[in-house]
Amino acid sequence: MKKVVTFGEILLRLSTERHLRFSQAESYKATYGGGEFNVAVSLANYGLSAEFITRLPNNELGTCALKEMRKLNVGCQNVVFGGDRLGIYFLETGASTRASNVIYDRANSSMGTINKGTINWKEILKEATWFHWSGITPALSESAGAACFEAIKAAHELGITISTDLNYRSKLWQYGKQPKEVMPEMLQYSNLILGDIDTAYFMLGVDKVNPDYQNEASLPVLYDKLFDLCPALKTAVTTLRYSVSASHQRIGGVLYDGKTIFNADVKEVTPVVDRVGSGDAFMGGLIYGLCEEPLNKQRALNFAVAACCLKHTIAGDYNLITIEEIEKLLDGDFSGKVSR
Amino acid sequence: MKKVVTFGEILLRLSTERHLRFSQAESYKATYGGGEFNVAVSLANYGLSAEFITRLPNNELGTCALKEMRKLNVGCQNVVFGGDRLGIYFLETGASTRASNVIYDRANSSMGTINKGTINWKEILKEATWFHWSGITPALSESAGAACFEAIKAAHELGITISTDLNYRSKLWQYGKQPKEVMPEMLQYSNLILGDIDTAYFMLGVDKVNPDYQNEASLPVLYDKLFDLCPALKTAVTTLRYSVSASHQRIGGVLYDGKTIFNADVKEVTPVVDRVGSGDAFMGGLIYGLCEEPLNKQRALNFAVAACCLKHTIAGDYNLITIEEIEKLLDGDFSGKVSR
Amino acid sequence: MKKVVTFGEILLRLSTERHLRFSQAESYKATYGGGEFNVAVSLANYGLSAEFITRLPNNELGTCALKEMRKLNVGCQNVVFGGDRLGIYFLETGASTRASNVIYDRANSSMGTINKGTINWKEILKEATWFHWSGITPALSESAGAACFEAIKAAHELGITISTDLNYRSKLWQYGKQPKEVMPEMLQYSNLILGDIDTAYFMLGVDKVNPDYQNEASLPVLYDKLFDLCPALKTAVTTLRYSVSASHQRIGGVLYDGKTIFNADVKEVTPVVDRVGSGDAFMGGLIYGLCEEPLNKQRALNFAVAACCLKHTIAGDYNLITIEEIEKLLDGDFSGKVSR
Amino acid sequence: MKKVVTFGEILLRLSTERHLRFSQAESYKATYGGGEFNVAVSLANYGLSAEFITRLPNNELGTCALKEMRKLNVGCQNVVFGGDRLGIYFLETGASTRASNVIYDRANSSMGTINKGTINWKEILKEATWFHWSGITPALSESAGAACFEAIKAAHELGITISTDLNYRSKLWQYGKQPKEVMPEMLQYSNLILGDIDTAYFMLGVDKVNPDYQNEASLPVLYDKLFDLCPALKTAVTTLRYSVSASHQRIGGVLYDGKTIFNADVKEVTPVVDRVGSGDAFMGGLIYGLCEEPLNKQRALNFAVAACCLKHTIAGDYNLITIEEIEKLLDGDFSGKVSR
Amino acid sequence: MKKVVTFGEILLRLSTERHLRFSQAESYKATYGGGEFNVAVSLANYGLSAEFITRLPNNELGTCALKEMRKLNVGCQNVVFGGDRLGIYFLETGASTRASNVIYDRANSSMGTINKGTINWKEILKEATWFHWSGITPALSESAGAACFEAIKAAHELGITISTDLNYRSKLWQYGKQPKEVMPEMLQYSNLILGDIDTAYFMLGVDKVNPDYQNEASLPVLYDKLFDLCPALKTAVTTLRYSVSASHQRIGGVLYDGKTIFNADVKEVTPVVDRVGSGDAFMGGLIYGLCEEPLNKQRALNFAVAACCLKHTIAGDYNLITIEEIEKLLDGDFSGKVSR
Amino acid sequence: MKKVVTFGEILLRLSTERHLRFSQAESYKATYGGGEFNVAVSLANYGLSAEFITRLPNNELGTCALKEMRKLNVGCQNVVFGGDRLGIYFLETGASTRASNVIYDRANSSMGTINKGTINWKEILKEATWFHWSGITPALSESAGAACFEAIKAAHELGITISTDLNYRSKLWQYGKQPKEVMPEMLQYSNLILGDIDTAYFMLGVDKVNPDYQNEASLPVLYDKLFDLCPALKTAVTTLRYSVSASHQRIGGVLYDGKTIFNADVKEVTPVVDRVGSGDAFMGGLIYGLCEEPLNKQRALNFAVAACCLKHTIAGDYNLITIEEIEKLLDGDFSGKVSR
Repeated sequence: MKKVVTFGEILLRLSTERHLRFSQAESYKATYGGGEFNVAVSLANYGLSAEFITRLPNNELGTCALKEMRKLNVGCQNVVFGGDRLGIYFLETGASTRASNVIYDRANSSMGTINKGTINWKEILKEATWFHWSGITPALSESAGAACFEAIKAAHELGITISTDLNYRSKLWQYGKQPKEVMPEMLQYSNLILGDIDTAYFMLGVDKVNPDYQNEASLPVLYDKLFDLCPALKTAVTTLRYSVSASHQRIGGVLYDGKTIFNADVKEVTPVVDRVGSGDAFMGGLIYGLCEEPLNKQRALNFAVAACCLKHTIAGDYNLITIEEIEKLLDGDFSGKVSR
Repeated sequence: MKKVVTFGEILLRLSTERHLRFSQAESYKATYGGGEFNVAVSLANYGLSAEFITRLPNNELGTCALKEMRKLNVGCQNVVFGGDRLGIYFLETGASTRASNVIYDRANSSMGTINKGTINWKEILKEATWFHWSGITPALSESAGAACFEAIKAAHELGITISTDLNYRSKLWQYGKQPKEVMPEMLQYSNLILGDIDTAYFMLGVDKVNPDYQNEASLPVLYDKLFDLCPALKTAVTTLRYSVSASHQRIGGVLYDGKTIFNADVKEVTPVVDRVGSGDAFMGGLIYGLCEEPLNKQRALNFAVAACCLKHTIAGDYNLITIEEIEKLLDGDFSGKVSR
Repeated sequence: MKKVVTFGEILLRLSTERHLRFSQAESYKATYGGGEFNVAVSLANYGLSAEFITRLPNNELGTCALKEMRKLNVGCQNVVFGGDRLGIYFLETGASTRASNVIYDRANSSMGTINKGTINWKEILKEATWFHWSGITPALSESAGAACFEAIKAAHELGITISTDLNYRSKLWQYGKQPKEVMPEMLQYSNLILGDIDTAYFMLGVDKVNPDYQNEASLPVLYDKLFDLCPALKTAVTTLRYSVSASHQRIGGVLYDGKTIFNADVKEVTPVVDRVGSGDAFMGGLIYGLCEEPLNKQRALNFAVAACCLKHTIAGDYNLITIEEIEKLLDGDFSGKVSR
Repeated sequence: MKKVVTFGEILLRLSTERHLRFSQAESYKATYGGGEFNVAVSLANYGLSAEFITRLPNNELGTCALKEMRKLNVGCQNVVFGGDRLGIYFLETGASTRASNVIYDRANSSMGTINKGTINWKEILKEATWFHWSGITPALSESAGAACFEAIKAAHELGITISTDLNYRSKLWQYGKQPKEVMPEMLQYSNLILGDIDTAYFMLGVDKVNPDYQNEASLPVLYDKLFDLCPALKTAVTTLRYSVSASHQRIGGVLYDGKTIFNADVKEVTPVVDRVGSGDAFMGGLIYGLCEEPLNKQRALNFAVAACCLKHTIAGDYNLITIEEIEKLLDGDFSGKVSR
Repeated sequence: MKKVVTFGEILLRLSTERHLRFSQAESYKATYGGGEFNVAVSLANYGLSAEFITRLPNNELGTCALKEMRKLNVGCQNVVFGGDRLGIYFLETGASTRASNVIYDRANSSMGTINKGTINWKEILKEATWFHWSGITPALSESAGAACFEAIKAAHELGITISTDLNYRSKLWQYGKQPKEVMPEMLQYSNLILGDIDTAYFMLGVDKVNPDYQNEASLPVLYDKLFDLCPALKTAVTTLRYSVSASHQRIGGVLYDGKTIFNADVKEVTPVVDRVGSGDAFMGGLIYGLCEEPLNKQRALNFAVAACCLKHTIAGDYNLITIEEIEKLLDGDFSGKVSR
Repeated sequence: MKKVVTFGEILLRLSTERHLRFSQAESYKATYGGGEFNVAVSLANYGLSAEFITRLPNNELGTCALKEMRKLNVGCQNVVFGGDRLGIYFLETGASTRASNVIYDRANSSMGTINKGTINWKEILKEATWFHWSGITPALSESAGAACFEAIKAAHELGITISTDLNYRSKLWQYGKQPKEVMPEMLQYSNLILGDIDTAYFMLGVDKVNPDYQNEASLPVLYDKLFDLCPALKTAVTTLRYSVSASHQRIGGVLYDGKTIFNADVKEVTPVVDRVGSGDAFMGGLIYGLCEEPLNKQRALNFAVAACCLKHTIAGDYNLITIEEIEKLLDGDFSGKVSR
């Protein structure tokens, strides 16, 4: 069986209910999530072997996060314990014209204070076929970035496929370095990059180009530049999101393999139950698709777009959609009829 | 006053909240519902005398169901007690592109194990003017089907109007018989049938015809065949549902009286609060309309469509809409302005 | 700093959750609101000094209302205590084709039984630059109307700007007088009136004219008549609401200053989280705009429309939107992207 | 079957949860209760025919109260509609050393504004064997007291047993009359009075005597005076409550039939789930006991004490305890073992 | 590491909140539990390797139960899927003088319809050092009893320690056999039996003896008889429960090893948060103690009593108490001081 | 009016409900509290002028804390904004034999990173008559301790009464200093110290003495040593807590003024609703008593004990008890009778 290892931070997510503002919240729903963990959950749900590596505090909240991994069948045998606290994020869910709002409270978390040398990557990755990381980890702290780079190099040495979600978060990157000082080196080893073209350019220290995703013909040149800057790159993917409002999204996607542009039909999502983690759901769907049928890129892209689309209907960070539900959507059944 | 008797199963409905998946549910909302019960609730709300006949277990859950009937002013003096358990269904409410999902846990329920001879139909129906049953009861078990047939024959002998909702449920019919082995005989006595034409054909053992409900002129021939197969049939009605998504429905309806096709304007419903029981709300509106003004079929159909439409805004199985609210909708007021 | 004083009733609002009907409610969310209080909250949120004058019962519920004012930074040092009870309103929130419903239970409230002479208006208003009242207070009782008229005259003598929201409520006005018997005298002093043209005509005892708000050219004549009837009037404003359904609104606005018609772009709101208080949010935005840049009427109107629009996404009576969020909307960003 | 009719007010009860203070309440649990209604519920639960007479407002809250009656199998066919509002009471549940607190908001309720002549008592009471009223009704308003007196006289004329719970509420009696001006006349017809001796003396305008309920021998003289003042009196009953704290009660009872003092063992209740309505549970148990075995006064008293005791474990106003549970307690089984 | 395997049914537990009666329940808390599963959870919490064997339906509810096992680190790799439904039990939690109440709805569950031959016991038990079963499994159905007997024999052949909790449930044993027809043969292989002496006598078909647990000297004779009847028996243990009320328990225990009576101090528990599963917590503590220090029976008994005692403070079926908390109690610290 | 200023940290408190363990929590109740803030709330409730000084992050959570202060009428005009985060603590509420558990997540909070020079103490304290601080602030960080010391010196220079709650928290003091290195200097200026004698000895670097609070005669010598070490000390107070269990406390108190030992009767609290903040409630009651009647130390002590006792019945950190409720308790009324 294919085994995918992801590396990153899992956070306690404290979200207000019923679209309440923070100042109206009398309680917070407590769930767990984080970009790379969310990807692992998707893969475990689809039946792949998925393992998540992180660092947790040695207290009850760390244990809660561990129980969540176990519950979701995500491998956690190599999670390390140490540091002072579990990272937290507070989420206020918007609606209609009002955007959702995130307050990060993750500074000095156990994962943010991880150092290289903490994880035995050689051992962990030896059974793996795929390694996934995202731009969030180097955004946490210099040492977390270094720990991630260590993993990347180990994966590269073992010849494992490496995927990266650029995941730019303007509220992170607070430790004194800019993405372009850190990311170019790390992205050298990525075989698959998910992100907007402009985000990639920004992280690689290149000028903005304002891509027109509607104009397919114009895209190869823009992607090719990424291929030039990232020598290991074989696949570049962009999620297309047309935000009508916080409650209404249109989701599509573009995949480029250095030769061909693949496109997926745009799908409507309204209302949006929870938008957070929809990019991770896309990534999870994409990795699954490429693991199952590596040569069928159109199928992988379609699967990723449908997974992303359906994620918007699931409360919480990670995607709890089944392969059957995704395939029903791919077959064109949007009716939402009660199954009974 | 007109008195309508309905016969069927009432279930404990355990539904997740806030569009949560089953695997996210930490609690279930507990309400009660069931096709034929829901029809009786509608009628009681509109001021008719409505009685519901079923079989309940002699435990606290059976008592809860009885209290629900009383609360809603549905006659329950002839409910019988016996058997082992109250049927249950678990409901996960979808949103947008994700469909709702039902898990039936109703096998071996008190109603599923009812036998003919249990209910004194002659006595119960003697004051009644209308008897309603649905395709769910014969789908439960052979003995429940037999008990239902007994009621039908009693109603027929007393000259009472008999209505039937075909209500095909693919997750039922588990006891070894197919609808076409059971339903044709039972439908002989129906004066009014609610259902898709193809469902009716399927239940009567006839080949699929893929009706085009937009093409009014094509419908009489298709309905006429039902009239041929069901000699007592005087009215055939179909709810038209155009499912844009789990959260967006368009509702219309067609009524045929053997001569004329009546059509109701399609109405938009978005967002959908709860779709379950909307067919029963249609049936309840239709029976009410036909009881109040038997000759005004257009009015009855319009009333049924509006009731169905408004039901989608009510949480739970049954319709709690007032006549005034339906009439406001029929008068074209969709504004949803706060009444104050 | 500009100081705005508003006068009216604050109510305990008991609302059902999740679109439940009253008959389904097992609990009520308890919040506080009321037209003139809501305006004060908006202004306090925008950083103005806002004070609210009312009369509260001397019991724990009165204290709860007072705590709410304090929490929201609305001045409450001149609130008076007396009378028997806090007014209540019950709210059932509709959805889609079903309208929301309000049951007022505010008769004989402490505010409803206030008499003139209770409030020392000279003292309270001496630092104020703006006084706001609405048509709800004279709708409560004759004595509340008299107390309000007393405030109006005091404000007028002090040369303070007086604004009025017509706020017609058909379920009030139960004490034997019609608006046209009370309002014309009170509106003599209003410098700004917010309301539909026909509502204003009705309250001033003039015949209905069915204004066509799409036809801008036709409006000055209609507004001019209001200017004739209300000699102090300098600005007349109307919120335009196109109700697609209880869950979908289109919001615009018109402002007339006796010379020019100003118009604001219509904005979509779907889904609606809570429609109550959206008019007060409009009023709060308008007063804020006119206080900040008195000559920029277009800006004030745009601000009011955006505030009203965003209020629909906030649960509860009053608007908890920031200036930054309003300006983001005015800048055309409807994307609702998660801020992180 | 014995039929008991009770007359009084049913209130919407809005209670805070989890021992929260009013100022902490973000929501209120909505249930329904009221002394005489609670007695009717107990009787219906024990299988007697119980009917409740009251006056409800013609709005959704009145309908909710009616649905509650139906649900609990309390006869409501003679409830009248009229007046402006449903009475409300707010409840804050204490714990340990902190007492519970009630805010009545029932002035001008539909029941409080009832007049004599509204109810057709002759018709209603003709099938009844027992009529129950309490000191709350004459405490509401002069007209409610008059309506109650009318019922009493009708019951007396029909020779029906009349029971009265003195139920003194210091926060009521606000309309200008003292109990001693109203109650003596009404108590002339009572065959059974439940209350403290001093409360009875107070209501009958007699001086306080500080009864020592531990000293059985001293009681007949004190009760005899009540028998002298109330010529129809045959049974006087007192609930003994030793309040250790808001969470810990000791419950006993004394019954005197003019000859013999009957005593019931004191029972411990800790913790108290809900103390409200425990007196009504006592009354309900007593009436049931005396209806079932009129001559077995000891049994009736024991049943009443056990019912009262168990009521403290039930949330809400009325008692939902079964005869079997009461008998288990009477048999000395306090173990609270899980029944499985 | 020691590995313990337990075999039995896991149920969906639907419990009312806040001591509500079934008829008051608007929602049910959904958790999972079952005697033998609860034991496995305790052991996993204490750090042993614990595996649970059961049969689950192949639907979302079965998956939920599986996720619960994973979350709690209970081995579930050998759980089998099949059959129609997950067993359910409804729980109403009593208080004070009112007992809790259970409604079992587990007939025809996947586990109840298991047959022998379904589980590969040889393979599963080959790494195990301990096998645990209880009297609930043979109470479900004849085939479940046969499947359990098969496991017992396999464990016996492999020389694994076998423990049994007698767990008599009067509401089970509905399939036509009495315990004494089934249990004696199964108990032949038990090395450790937990249960009341009289329950053991009853299950073994021997007359009741009314043991006096306070009289230690009298116990060996009574236990010896069990040793005679169960040739493999080495340890007999009884939990002593003195039920002051549903909210107040006193917990002790007795262990007999064929030679010596060991006794544990009685501990007070008040209030009781949740009594269900406290026997399983005792069993879990006992197995843990005997696995860790097989010869220190006093320590194992003390540990079991403390674990049982602390379980009463945990909501849900299984015990989430840490070894540190148990040891704190064993050290005599009952203060409940906040740890901070 | 007396004005009291307190200085310290306000935390977001995230507590599990219904005695759930952290690992069972699906949501957290969000309230706000902190030792010195809690004292200010008590004083504001009793009608004194109370102001709280702290440092808050400039985000929505900081604003929430500010709104809480305003709501409770605690002066917050001099709160400063800065730093990165609001401190958090997670609370799991125990029951019976299980202790409550706190996880502090307050490192690097805005208050923990405050520096001296941030607050203009001269200005703030010039109207004050009392300044209160606790041992928590110097436990947070060296700079917070320095900021506190600065305040102490300013208060001392202004001749204001200084009170200190020793409040030892073993989970704090993580920055490398021990209490005895920091506290002796700070306590030089305290006029009133609240704490256990041994805690005071420990903080002052003196050996443990195991005081016997039952033996009044032995106490003066022990307290006198504190007076020797703290030259400004005039009053030493100790809360006596006899913990029967997490749910049952016995509360008393001792006050020594250098001459006389005052003692308060021990009061029972069972069940405990919330124990956190009960020491702050004691402190608040004591300051209030001493402000109102400086010479009546017995009264102040009694008031403090009763306030502490009643706090245990209030959910959340701070005390919402009225003077009337405290006086009722002091008058010996523990009955908890419903006030109605």
